[in-house]
Amino acid sequence: MKKIILIGSGNVAYHLGHAFCNVGHQIVQVISKSETNAKVLAKKLNAGFETDINKIKQADFAIVGVNDDAISTVSNQIKNMPFAHTSGSVCLKNGGVFYPIQTLSKDIPLDLKKVPFCVSAKNKDFENTLFRLARSISNHVYQIDEKQRKILHLAAVFACNFSNNMYAIAQDLLKKSDLDFEILKPLIAETANKIRQHSPKSMQTGPAKRRDMQTIENHIDLLEDEGLKRLYRLITNDIQK
Amino acid sequence: MKKIILIGSGNVAYHLGHAFCNVGHQIVQVISKSETNAKVLAKKLNAGFETDINKIKQADFAIVGVNDDAISTVSNQIKNMPFAHTSGSVCLKNGGVFYPIQTLSKDIPLDLKKVPFCVSAKNKDFENTLFRLARSISNHVYQIDEKQRKILHLAAVFACNFSNNMYAIAQDLLKKSDLDFEILKPLIAETANKIRQHSPKSMQTGPAKRRDMQTIENHIDLLEDEGLKRLYRLITNDIQK
Repeated sequence: MKKIILIGSGNVAYHLGHAFCNVGHQIVQVISKSETNAKVLAKKLNAGFETDINKIKQADFAIVGVNDDAISTVSNQIKNMPFAHTSGSVCLKNGGVFYPIQTLSKDIPLDLKKVPFCVSAKNKDFENTLFRLARSISNHVYQIDEKQRKILHLAAVFACNFSNNMYAIAQDLLKKSDLDFEILKPLIAETANKIRQHSPKSMQTGPAKRRDMQTIENHIDLLEDEGLKRLYRLITNDIQK
Repeated sequence: MKKIILIGSGNVAYHLGHAFCNVGHQIVQVISKSETNAKVLAKKLNAGFETDINKIKQADFAIVGVNDDAISTVSNQIKNMPFAHTSGSVCLKNGGVFYPIQTLSKDIPLDLKKVPFCVSAKNKDFENTLFRLARSISNHVYQIDEKQRKILHLAAVFACNFSNNMYAIAQDLLKKSDLDFEILKPLIAETANKIRQHSPKSMQTGPAKRRDMQTIENHIDLLEDEGLKRLYRLITNDIQK
């Protein structure tokens, strides 16, 4: 059992906090700029809450689950214990990395046991502590170096954030023509399902792959937004490479 | 029970042919430029095969499941019966449309009962025939007009073909850094799973959404390909709109 300070009260802090508690770790304190969020999360985790990081309590270590751009400022203020941030892309200056490779939303329950985690730290003892912490909540833990982690995060942005944006663009297009997004849901599910067993390249279908040039031009004409026209062309070119 | 000529021997013809046979329709003939593919599919469907469309037999109607760019040439040669093509984007000049909104691959089994179909035809009797044909193999059949169908197909390209391309880019990035694509599979599954119950916009996560500008710039630096750099910027801009 570890005593943990949780910094941040967003999606990542929310899921990690619950997973830590569920396997018997103690969240000593939730620290967040947002008093409301800190209070709500702390109550659920049976922890104290604080908005001022200078009032940080003592614990075994801190997990810093805040926006990438805030990690450096926040972690520079932690003097009394080791800490790890949860970002896939921020440099490992001191402290460690505790990065869940998953898209986390507060209102969507998720079994962290199946979520891959990347851990690393310059101090090997602390890296081992982070490894055991990750193994206590997940069955899939990787110790990978900083360069690989950054590529992994970049790849995750394409696979998750950018594919979700493709869904959002599709939904927008349907909405403008009074069509229900439900009609595309089996297609989205199957597209993701196929790559469980097959490589995405071998599963590529559609006008770009078939080089149906007239259809491609018709689609670009149908798009009203100049940014979307450019996007359509770029992705089509990438598929045809 | 209908007597059907199947034109084409690719992914769509393959799945439709099997579904028609399974519910008791008769495939009279499979016609395809590729003799090997026509032969293989015809054998499975207990049908004759032919490579020359001028040797088309008589049946109730023909289903034209060929590349978009070939539909017009092929269907101009069908004089002896009504026909419908399976494309989401090709204009309805004569004949009808029998469009499955799903990504189909020969080597991946799929329950067509759950696949939405769009049917339409200028001749209302034939449209009703196509509606009943679709209902014989699917629980979700829509009669929508040509303009809506074209938008639906465009949206399907974003939701399916383009999101699959995002997976392919991710896999390429990992491969170059000796990382296993398996590590991203739970993330891809969850990203698609989330939008079953929630709107994609509300589920958007990642550096673009959080406006982690340093991370965004780092990612663009990491990408070596100029096309991918442009793609990353365009999608990031679209998310931030």
